[in-house]
Order: sequence, then C-alpha cells, then structure tokens
Amino acid sequence: MSRRVSGTSPDSEILARLGEAIRARRRQLQLSQEELANQSGIDRSHMGKIERGERNVTLLNIERVAKVLQTAPSQLLGEAGF
Amino acid sequence: MSRRVSGTSPDSEILARLGEAIRARRRQLQLSQEELANQSGIDRSHMGKIERGERNVTLLNIERVAKVLQTAPSQLLGEAGF
Repeated sequence: MSRRVSGTSPDSEILARLGEAIRARRRQLQLSQEELANQSGIDRSHMGKIERGERNVTLLNIERVAKVLQTAPSQLLGEAGF
Repeated sequence: MSRRVSGTSPDSEILARLGEAIRARRRQLQLSQEELANQSGIDRSHMGKIERGERNVTLLNIERVAKVLQTAPSQLLGEAGF
C-alpha cells in the first residue's frame, strides 16, 4: 500500500507533515497509535511509519485513517498544509 | 508508488472518484493525459490507470498531479467528494 521513502527531500517533508497532522488529530481524540492502527485496519508498525513520514501513504489508507479520526481526507490534508 | 485494485468495492469507487476529479480538472486546463503525465513525472500508462481509478494513488503522486493541475491536494480531494 505504500513505498519506502528516505532522505530529507521535499517528498519526505510532505509525508512528515501528513504524519504530524494524523498524530495531532489522533491525540486530540485520545486514541493510541495501536487503536488507530487496529480501527483503520493498518498494520501497527506501518501506522508508526506513516506518522513518522517514512511511508508514501496511499489514498485508500488516508481514507481509512481519516474515517477513524472522524474527519475527511481533504480536511486531513488541509490540516497538513496541502 | 501504488497498488493494483480490482472489483467494485467502495475502495475502487474512491479511486474512481479521484480519477474523475483529476480528469475533469485536466480537461479544464486543456491538458492531454500525456502532458499531465510528463509534467508530473508519472509514467503515462500509470497516469491512465490513476484516472480510471485502477491504482491506489499515493500522497506523493497526488501532490505531483495537483501541482501540475494548479491546485492543492486537499482541493483535489474535496472536488472528488472526500
């Protein structure tokens, strides 16, 4: 569902910003990373990598995460500054 | 950068809706699919599959396509109804 990303390119910055937006909203909802992973059907270690911006997250996973975070994918991306 | 998708699940509907939003905006800008592919650095056949909702597009590719389409990823997703 995703691609490994390394380095400090703008690409990794983009992924890091989305990861931060996911983490911020998850904490607002007082969900653990494990709960978010379980509820969105994403492997726990993969979820950690998404939050750290280490994976090129796909639209379907953005959609699953947004649903658990009670928001829309467009809203989540907007919060990440996209 | 993506994952093959098949069937008529909600997942494929989500991808199809983004593909339609990309196509609509591309046509507004009077860009060919080939021009969009070239300018966003995405393989032409892959771009066709994204527009047809046949690939689980990644955030980085959404970002590249949005840039060429002179819009923001969040705007593009919003136009797709997400």
